[in-house]
Amino acid sequence: MRFSFPLMALGLEVAMIVLFGLFAEYETDHGMIYQPNTTQITESERFFQLYPLFQDVHVMIFVGFGFLMTFLKKYGFSGVGINLFVAALGLQWGIIIQGILHSHGEKIQIGIKNIINADFSTATVLISFGAVLGKTSPIQMLIMTILEIAAFAGNEYLVGEIFQATDIGASMTIHAFGAYFGLAVAGILYRSGLRKGHRNEESTYNSDLFAMIGTIFLWIFWPSFNSAIAEPGDEQNRAIVNTYFSLAACVLTAFAFSSLVTHGGKLNMVHIQNATLAGGVAVGTCADMDISPYVAMIIGSIAGVVSVLGYKLLTPCFATKLRIHDTCGVHNLHGLPGVIGGLASIVAIVMGKSKKSTIAMQAAALGSSIGTAIVGGILTGLILKIPFWEQPSDQNCYDDSVYWEVKVGRSK
Amino acid sequence: MRFSFPLMALGLEVAMIVLFGLFAEYETDHGMIYQPNTTQITESERFFQLYPLFQDVHVMIFVGFGFLMTFLKKYGFSGVGINLFVAALGLQWGIIIQGILHSHGEKIQIGIKNIINADFSTATVLISFGAVLGKTSPIQMLIMTILEIAAFAGNEYLVGEIFQATDIGASMTIHAFGAYFGLAVAGILYRSGLRKGHRNEESTYNSDLFAMIGTIFLWIFWPSFNSAIAEPGDEQNRAIVNTYFSLAACVLTAFAFSSLVTHGGKLNMVHIQNATLAGGVAVGTCADMDISPYVAMIIGSIAGVVSVLGYKLLTPCFATKLRIHDTCGVHNLHGLPGVIGGLASIVAIVMGKSKKSTIAMQAAALGSSIGTAIVGGILTGLILKIPFWEQPSDQNCYDDSVYWEVKVGRSK
Amino acid sequence: MRFSFPLMALGLEVAMIVLFGLFAEYETDHGMIYQPNTTQITESERFFQLYPLFQDVHVMIFVGFGFLMTFLKKYGFSGVGINLFVAALGLQWGIIIQGILHSHGEKIQIGIKNIINADFSTATVLISFGAVLGKTSPIQMLIMTILEIAAFAGNEYLVGEIFQATDIGASMTIHAFGAYFGLAVAGILYRSGLRKGHRNEESTYNSDLFAMIGTIFLWIFWPSFNSAIAEPGDEQNRAIVNTYFSLAACVLTAFAFSSLVTHGGKLNMVHIQNATLAGGVAVGTCADMDISPYVAMIIGSIAGVVSVLGYKLLTPCFATKLRIHDTCGVHNLHGLPGVIGGLASIVAIVMGKSKKSTIAMQAAALGSSIGTAIVGGILTGLILKIPFWEQPSDQNCYDDSVYWEVKVGRSK
Repeated sequence: MRFSFPLMALGLEVAMIVLFGLFAEYETDHGMIYQPNTTQITESERFFQLYPLFQDVHVMIFVGFGFLMTFLKKYGFSGVGINLFVAALGLQWGIIIQGILHSHGEKIQIGIKNIINADFSTATVLISFGAVLGKTSPIQMLIMTILEIAAFAGNEYLVGEIFQATDIGASMTIHAFGAYFGLAVAGILYRSGLRKGHRNEESTYNSDLFAMIGTIFLWIFWPSFNSAIAEPGDEQNRAIVNTYFSLAACVLTAFAFSSLVTHGGKLNMVHIQNATLAGGVAVGTCADMDISPYVAMIIGSIAGVVSVLGYKLLTPCFATKLRIHDTCGVHNLHGLPGVIGGLASIVAIVMGKSKKSTIAMQAAALGSSIGTAIVGGILTGLILKIPFWEQPSDQNCYDDSVYWEVKVGRSK
Repeated sequence: MRFSFPLMALGLEVAMIVLFGLFAEYETDHGMIYQPNTTQITESERFFQLYPLFQDVHVMIFVGFGFLMTFLKKYGFSGVGINLFVAALGLQWGIIIQGILHSHGEKIQIGIKNIINADFSTATVLISFGAVLGKTSPIQMLIMTILEIAAFAGNEYLVGEIFQATDIGASMTIHAFGAYFGLAVAGILYRSGLRKGHRNEESTYNSDLFAMIGTIFLWIFWPSFNSAIAEPGDEQNRAIVNTYFSLAACVLTAFAFSSLVTHGGKLNMVHIQNATLAGGVAVGTCADMDISPYVAMIIGSIAGVVSVLGYKLLTPCFATKLRIHDTCGVHNLHGLPGVIGGLASIVAIVMGKSKKSTIAMQAAALGSSIGTAIVGGILTGLILKIPFWEQPSDQNCYDDSVYWEVKVGRSK
Repeated sequence: MRFSFPLMALGLEVAMIVLFGLFAEYETDHGMIYQPNTTQITESERFFQLYPLFQDVHVMIFVGFGFLMTFLKKYGFSGVGINLFVAALGLQWGIIIQGILHSHGEKIQIGIKNIINADFSTATVLISFGAVLGKTSPIQMLIMTILEIAAFAGNEYLVGEIFQATDIGASMTIHAFGAYFGLAVAGILYRSGLRKGHRNEESTYNSDLFAMIGTIFLWIFWPSFNSAIAEPGDEQNRAIVNTYFSLAACVLTAFAFSSLVTHGGKLNMVHIQNATLAGGVAVGTCADMDISPYVAMIIGSIAGVVSVLGYKLLTPCFATKLRIHDTCGVHNLHGLPGVIGGLASIVAIVMGKSKKSTIAMQAAALGSSIGTAIVGGILTGLILKIPFWEQPSDQNCYDDSVYWEVKVGRSK
């Protein structure tokens, strides 16, 4: 048992190196490329256009998700540390699995687009990680990373290549998928011993401020997330503008509803850390469409309201009625807003705002994303439930000291 | 009273959506554009050149200002949280009010330049927020955001369109304006009950480190702030280089004077968090001029000295003599260095370093910025003084728990 | 004594202003430039391609190194604060000393390349700062900055211009150099009174989380560090891709070996904060070569293992046997991985992966970097040992309150 995590990590890294040796090579610069909506530019110039957007997404994955999950008073090392581990593994595996699906038998050409997509594929696991935060071991996260990214890549292939649906900001394929996958895993791993809560499942003043580092960086760079793989020109510009305003509107409604639903009209840190981001998720699918900025703001406003209400009403209900305990409330930040994103795209197509997809294909994409996630999550949960993955006991949940060297008396 | 903040926030968001629906549309890509000092490029390429600078400014607004204001031991949630709220509201309102002033009756074309300017317009309110930090309610901040951005946009129109003055890094129109507006508000809202200080108006070791996150990100990205709207080519390059060296020089003089004026030759965290940034403010107006790098360093050096001396000598004097209590010392970080920036531009024009403006126009710009700010701040302060905006009582100042759910015992 | 630090800082800033006045001017835009591997672009366009990479490096220097050094429980102000001071001084001095060496008697033309290189030159001092963290005074750091950057620039000139060696990510010229310089200084300044440790030389839960801010930002932006001065086109793309995968692989082996060597199979924060970055250092010299992504992953994997083993085995041994106390373990993060980087480049040349240099020249570069660093470090150490630089007494080590105003009771 003592050696299972390190040996599996080393074994997986060796496997990744072998897979990269067999299947991956550098993309080479072929000079001029055709870009819709703009003039011809060289591949090298395109690289420099996208590199800053890639780095923004990179910050979201490692700082954004990482610090957002440091809000628990004794689980910050795992929040940011296991986030780093999962993402570093996931991006390697994502390159391989996405590459094999998309490269039609040729070698995977690694360039800026692959590393953006590799970062994206890790996001699904990090979202699911939020649902089970504090209740799983590093080795369980390692297994989930491998299984979930495979399921994600399969669903993404289905949505993009078979259904030909549009989901530029990945509301459905990343956010809804990651949330429902995580909820399914959390449901299978449900601990009835913790149904009355756990003394460590709370934040401190400082841990809430560390979490705000994650929130703010996610909020800032979300326009890059939603636009990184959009077509250059008007579509990419719209993806940035729509996301910018959806997020701004979402902040106002999230603050307003946080105050409305909280005792004494106060603001609640959980809402502010999470629901202010729901606008970025919800506008994702429509982000590059010609929906008008004010519609992006309406989508963001609705997402902020729904997300706060989700934290207030649904999360407790899920825990007690459905026996699904969602530590970070990923259903409210990623699940519901992801569904809103998919539905918004259907409305937009009905209104004639996009010719790129059809109602049926968008509905199929939404259904496939949720369905694959739930089935994949249940199967993954069953594998993770096998009792030799070093799960923490109920009383050791939400406590770094089980997996990290933490000096006594340092937990303040 | 319980519902005034959420209802006003929701009402404002609805108003923003209506305004955007009526007045805003996406900018569309018209292909090749003329750029002074360089070859023709497409609008899409220009977008990608500016987007990274926009994101740097975005980080300054939300991480920089936000965390800089977490230095108080019990007011970190408000520092970073209300900063987010104010900026999210302000950027929507800024787009509308600036757009209406500049669009000559046509629809506002929203592209990268607008969202950079929208971020800029929020900076004024965030600077003023620093002057009243801990002594106002969220609803007062909401009202101040609306009023101050209107005043800011009016003054900026006057300075740029009527006076045709130059102020590329906005030393006068943002920094001096925001500081004197905030000081005027703080003067009107003066609380004589707090003239001997308040037990919560101090930092802790951790809150000082959180504030340093803000300082360092502001410091790093200031070259982008001062150059984002400069002419491409030599002028933009100079704006970056001048700001880079002005800030570096400012760090040395700020550290030196912090040690000189502090008991035992020690360094003082307030000086390091703030005065090290004064060089970015002070070089702003001249940033794109051909002043030579060493002159930028002289400007930065002076700003570092003046800012530390301001904290040591002026801030206490303002509080006791002028009955203006400036929580963050924005006068020393933004006010005085902003004035230095305006004066430096006059000297630069006298020396023939810029043909873009005249001494009279720069002096008019500086006078207008300070004058509009003081008048606007006094009027805003009088409105905020009306006793139904949920102001905290004197003893509840600088305490998050008045407006946020904070568990007892979490404030360390 | 009371005035030595501020007066030296002011004197140096005056000297910098004089040197810039004499030797520096803005680079001007000459329009079209030739770029190998790509089409012609204008200097202005090249500026915008490099500016985001510059800002990434800037974040690494000020946030990355700065917060990484906040891990000590009572030395966070100095970690991030003195880091800012050293880097702000170093970048000015680096421009001058590098400029004089490379400008062949003409004025130094300051553009984007210089400010990237100026940031690089500060990195060496910040690495060495890690070796002596907590045991030196600000004035000692100021002196070390001046001396080390001169030695660095001399060695870099030797390596690049005389040996014509290749070291695109500066594994040898920055990382190995900075580490061995710092170790030499630490050896000379060895305090036998602290050979049994010091009660302040430990972290707290929050200080470890602050340090993770540094780690994560360094990790994210390392591809920009290794590629910023690479040739545009395939080489720059490879530098980014190789660094991305080397770092990802390094995370897996660092986590695995941290668990393997730590009591009870737990993870150790020191390893996670540092060894996860070793892959960025080790792949540096080869980063732009056509080594294949899987080889980059092998290099990163090895670096992760070596770095953790260094922390476990070498650091304690250095402190007791060699009387070299390395506070941050820079030998494990920068020294050994830097040597691996140099050796990897020799292997790559043997395998025919690069025609840019020869085995002999790479070996000379590695030898020169280590040799110059050790000699320069010993000489610098001897100067710093002169007993009027306000060194802290043994019992005052690792304590901000010696040089900073820190309220009693705030150190938690």
